[in-house]
Amino acid sequence: MSVTVAVDAMGGDHGPAVTVPASLRFLESHADTRVILVGLGDAIEKELQRVPGALRARIVVRPATEVVDMDEPPADALRRKKDSSMRVAINLVKEGSAQACVSAGNTGALMAIAKFVLKTLPGIDRPAIASQLPTKKGEATVLDLGANVQCSPQQLVQFAAMGSALASAVDHIERPTIGLLNVGEEDIKGNDVVKEAAELLRRSGLNFHGNVEGDDIYKGTTDVVVCDGFTGNVMLKTSEGLAQMLYEFLKAEFTRSPLTRLAALVAYPVLSSFKRRIDPRRYNGATLLGLRGVVVKSHGGADVLGFGNAIAKAHAEVTERVLERIAERIATMPALTEASAGADA
Amino acid sequence: MSVTVAVDAMGGDHGPAVTVPASLRFLESHADTRVILVGLGDAIEKELQRVPGALRARIVVRPATEVVDMDEPPADALRRKKDSSMRVAINLVKEGSAQACVSAGNTGALMAIAKFVLKTLPGIDRPAIASQLPTKKGEATVLDLGANVQCSPQQLVQFAAMGSALASAVDHIERPTIGLLNVGEEDIKGNDVVKEAAELLRRSGLNFHGNVEGDDIYKGTTDVVVCDGFTGNVMLKTSEGLAQMLYEFLKAEFTRSPLTRLAALVAYPVLSSFKRRIDPRRYNGATLLGLRGVVVKSHGGADVLGFGNAIAKAHAEVTERVLERIAERIATMPALTEASAGADA
Repeated sequence: MSVTVAVDAMGGDHGPAVTVPASLRFLESHADTRVILVGLGDAIEKELQRVPGALRARIVVRPATEVVDMDEPPADALRRKKDSSMRVAINLVKEGSAQACVSAGNTGALMAIAKFVLKTLPGIDRPAIASQLPTKKGEATVLDLGANVQCSPQQLVQFAAMGSALASAVDHIERPTIGLLNVGEEDIKGNDVVKEAAELLRRSGLNFHGNVEGDDIYKGTTDVVVCDGFTGNVMLKTSEGLAQMLYEFLKAEFTRSPLTRLAALVAYPVLSSFKRRIDPRRYNGATLLGLRGVVVKSHGGADVLGFGNAIAKAHAEVTERVLERIAERIATMPALTEASAGADA
Repeated sequence: MSVTVAVDAMGGDHGPAVTVPASLRFLESHADTRVILVGLGDAIEKELQRVPGALRARIVVRPATEVVDMDEPPADALRRKKDSSMRVAINLVKEGSAQACVSAGNTGALMAIAKFVLKTLPGIDRPAIASQLPTKKGEATVLDLGANVQCSPQQLVQFAAMGSALASAVDHIERPTIGLLNVGEEDIKGNDVVKEAAELLRRSGLNFHGNVEGDDIYKGTTDVVVCDGFTGNVMLKTSEGLAQMLYEFLKAEFTRSPLTRLAALVAYPVLSSFKRRIDPRRYNGATLLGLRGVVVKSHGGADVLGFGNAIAKAHAEVTERVLERIAERIATMPALTEASAGADA
């Protein structure tokens, strides 16, 4: 299957200096693929000098005159920058010139533009942001990581269906187990939305495990963890902050004295191997799930390796038919609106 | 100031085997204090054999015939077990025989009984669970960690006032900075509750820093972090799960081969020092804040060191006048109900 990925070459903290070399590496490791680099022509061409002809033949440069700023209000980016690299890249997916789009730009703008241009899949009210996180057992697909701060029970069920489809596609799990993120105390088990979502999930036909708590994510209790975007965003950022703090504490201990520096030298291969195992670059690439097109968001600060992983993730979602799988999951589910009509009353 | 702490000797996974030795250690390190051990007389007395007379003289054993199970529904514990060790310990605070109560038992039951027996402080709608977490800069006071899954903006402001009082008392910060836990994307900055809470906090007279994100907790951006109990509980459990996973990964790398085991031997003092720095036992003891009495919840699985820290925390909250400080903070704040009437309209 020949896949073309549209890359927003201008997005992220480093722009073409990262996005172009990452695209080249992706093309090298993925035969039968093409990349459309979207952005300011000069900046991109500069990075394409000395690229071998065979590789160059699989690259198209598509000029776009504007760039969405990292801190630009999404509504402004959507309304005013019709020729931004982000928007043009998404347009390429819409018109079928590319099967997926990858950007390291402004998340809010990417979501707003993708939603406006591509629209959501049938049965999906709003898209969600999904990502894989490392667990003791492998990895878990977690969503929503920040697109929807307030969610209805029906939306949480849609997230579950989409997460299930993504886990099947990317992790090759036939019937992924679904956990609904909740709190543990018996008397306060969840707010009303989570309680109703659990009821709906039990009747959804999905492989619903039940409620899970925060520590279950990294324990790998379920293949998919579903939550609203407020909780998911706090969870993800908290994890980043904690990992960063622990890393700094460990570093501080190993650099405390000549003796501990010697220990660090001896332990270096072990510590490197540990660091590789939880390298966030391995997990780079969050999927904007629920759109009529594959859109992957890279971390803004990603380097060549990280951004390359985001492109590879977009590619895998196309070849593994994530969109079709979502449509299939949704089609076999009992109508959510009917199911919830009773609970709402 | 002579302080008496009522200890629920039966609570937690280990009961008197942990609570009694921890109480003895506390008494040894804190002159001019007393402990009332509440629970099944025989089980407690067994642990008190061979205790020196001077120490024994500062201990009272108060029999209670029932024990609240760790998984017992809080409403049952409240209604049916009138002579539980937990309830009797809280009664001792109510009647003034003790100034604080410590339990490693069922959190939901402890909260339900404490709320019923002690009632909340003036101006506090509902109590919250607060705890200190380690940060890059020191520690942060975070609440609510799970008592209230749904919160009004007014309640979040009350949490801020209580957290501020606790940070002043325990960490000796005169005007602790307050962060409101929120999400980062520009277009989705918070749900309606958080938005209104931010408005109220700006007018509260507290040292409000503004919104913070999940990673700000461990960065130590603010002295206090306020959130609803759903978010706080997920945040805390996620942190526990991640730390546990990273610890296991690190251990796995160091035990992979004879060579890495040798490296572990060399690095042992460094790794121990790292482990000590983030030892959860150091942070054991969550405060049930907002009650007319000091109630501290120890982790159920706490050992002697951990439970001893929870008792010491309860003691410090008494000597540092946490309840009075909360009352002072609340008294100087503009009336929240009035302030929110406009926002609700």
